[in-house]
Amino acid sequence: MSLVIVGSLAFDTIETPFAKKERIIGGSCSFSALAASYFSDPKVVAVIGEDFPEAFVELLQRRGVDTRGIKREAGKTFHWEGRYGEDPNQRTTIKTELNVFQDFKAQLLPDYASSDILFLGNIDPDLQEDILKQVHKPRLIAMDTINLWINTKLEALLRVMREVDIFFANDEEVRIIAGELNLIKAGRKLLEKGPSLIVIKKGEHGALLLGKDFLFGTLAYPCENVIDPTGAGDSFAGAFLGYLDKLQEFTPAVFRKAAVYGSVLASFTIEDFSVERLTSLKDEDIDRRFAALQQLVAF
Amino acid sequence: MSLVIVGSLAFDTIETPFAKKERIIGGSCSFSALAASYFSDPKVVAVIGEDFPEAFVELLQRRGVDTRGIKREAGKTFHWEGRYGEDPNQRTTIKTELNVFQDFKAQLLPDYASSDILFLGNIDPDLQEDILKQVHKPRLIAMDTINLWINTKLEALLRVMREVDIFFANDEEVRIIAGELNLIKAGRKLLEKGPSLIVIKKGEHGALLLGKDFLFGTLAYPCENVIDPTGAGDSFAGAFLGYLDKLQEFTPAVFRKAAVYGSVLASFTIEDFSVERLTSLKDEDIDRRFAALQQLVAF
Repeated sequence: MSLVIVGSLAFDTIETPFAKKERIIGGSCSFSALAASYFSDPKVVAVIGEDFPEAFVELLQRRGVDTRGIKREAGKTFHWEGRYGEDPNQRTTIKTELNVFQDFKAQLLPDYASSDILFLGNIDPDLQEDILKQVHKPRLIAMDTINLWINTKLEALLRVMREVDIFFANDEEVRIIAGELNLIKAGRKLLEKGPSLIVIKKGEHGALLLGKDFLFGTLAYPCENVIDPTGAGDSFAGAFLGYLDKLQEFTPAVFRKAAVYGSVLASFTIEDFSVERLTSLKDEDIDRRFAALQQLVAF
Repeated sequence: MSLVIVGSLAFDTIETPFAKKERIIGGSCSFSALAASYFSDPKVVAVIGEDFPEAFVELLQRRGVDTRGIKREAGKTFHWEGRYGEDPNQRTTIKTELNVFQDFKAQLLPDYASSDILFLGNIDPDLQEDILKQVHKPRLIAMDTINLWINTKLEALLRVMREVDIFFANDEEVRIIAGELNLIKAGRKLLEKGPSLIVIKKGEHGALLLGKDFLFGTLAYPCENVIDPTGAGDSFAGAFLGYLDKLQEFTPAVFRKAAVYGSVLASFTIEDFSVERLTSLKDEDIDRRFAALQQLVAF
């Protein structure tokens, strides 16, 4: 089994109504890789600047993450600054400094290029496309994206979409790309654009999976103490794909369980700032929430 | 078994991006009673004006609804006018004419007053309170409300709440009453205000049920053609309570199934204007969607 995750390692500056945290660990790859590490030993591809703490790279290693694909370059690490309102679903981006990410060109290591599963995190679609050219027929390719690329690089994004099996996005993004407000219809429209599975992340409302003859919905794990929602979607995707990599089976039955594990890992992420909750979970913690979600929807 | 539903029989004028319908049948009681009629023979309490079609009263009767509690009074029927945006979750009230509802005082018939289940639809809390005084220890009392009463008659509403077992409201209303954005926390706060079960209707995201040691979530049935969401919440509550009345058992296991039937009936309601879809469903139609929801969340 092998899962390669391409994404960002970053500093986040986060403001909520209750606290402000400066330059804490963030980035899609940080969340995805840690979430995936509870199911698989992901290999990561990312770029960091001179200011990024080696201690976090070592933490990834201790969680079984293969960090040979992390490149340290001259300059500063990617930095995102955002603010959440009273309603944690409302996020405002204050600043995005790409820094070393600006001119990053990934060069996959040979064993990375022949992985089973490739996850293209929510990075520049040109970079996603560049990586697609380097891999040797992975069994499964997944991608994520963000509004920024939908607004600025839609054509490149659609080109990447044509090559992937699984497309992750949040409900708003799915509606925008499809040009359709009804989420089911919007999801079906995206199925015509390449992927065979659309995974719609709906934040506190859970997630919806759409395939050709397949529909699955999971609720979010009911969290009472949402501290910082940053990274929830990345954690969802990381756990989802980590579970797929563990099982090496890409069937609807596996997708269902993968999505529930995605919800579980996302629920831990939002209970603290940064990746705090993802560094030292026990299998029992995960199993308990998986069982709680089973109980939550049983009738 | 006996279920009494108190609510409004009304005319609705509805504008959507695709059509405008003038003075079609609406009102919480119309939707609740028809939805409940697939499980039970509800008795309804409502007031209509001289302009309300007797044909609709007869239609209710054909569906097994006991209409002796409908009072026809001099004047015009309650009329609500609203508009939906491109996003069917966004509703604007243009006009509310209470008309004969303004001074309505319900006088329950003796057999109504001794019913097993009483549902106080989303009417004026003073009227809800007045009806509470007339009933003889029903086995279960449920209530619904709307923003209007939260904004104008919160104290009376909270008095009624103290007397009921089940409180229905949508997510926004629950957050406002509780003064808490986190929906789980907000629901728990409402549990301290009297009801032993809070049913939070979340529109396209389904519903959440909260009790002291009980949590259940159901998804909405995935509708691809949402024509008019008016009455979805009333249909949900009607089906929920109709099912409870059918089973005469008020346990968590029954609440779970009741909520799923609620979702199913709501899903039919929104597929056409007014009560169109609720007048001639077959049991198989309902069973099929119930099974589809089971399949939708299974993992």
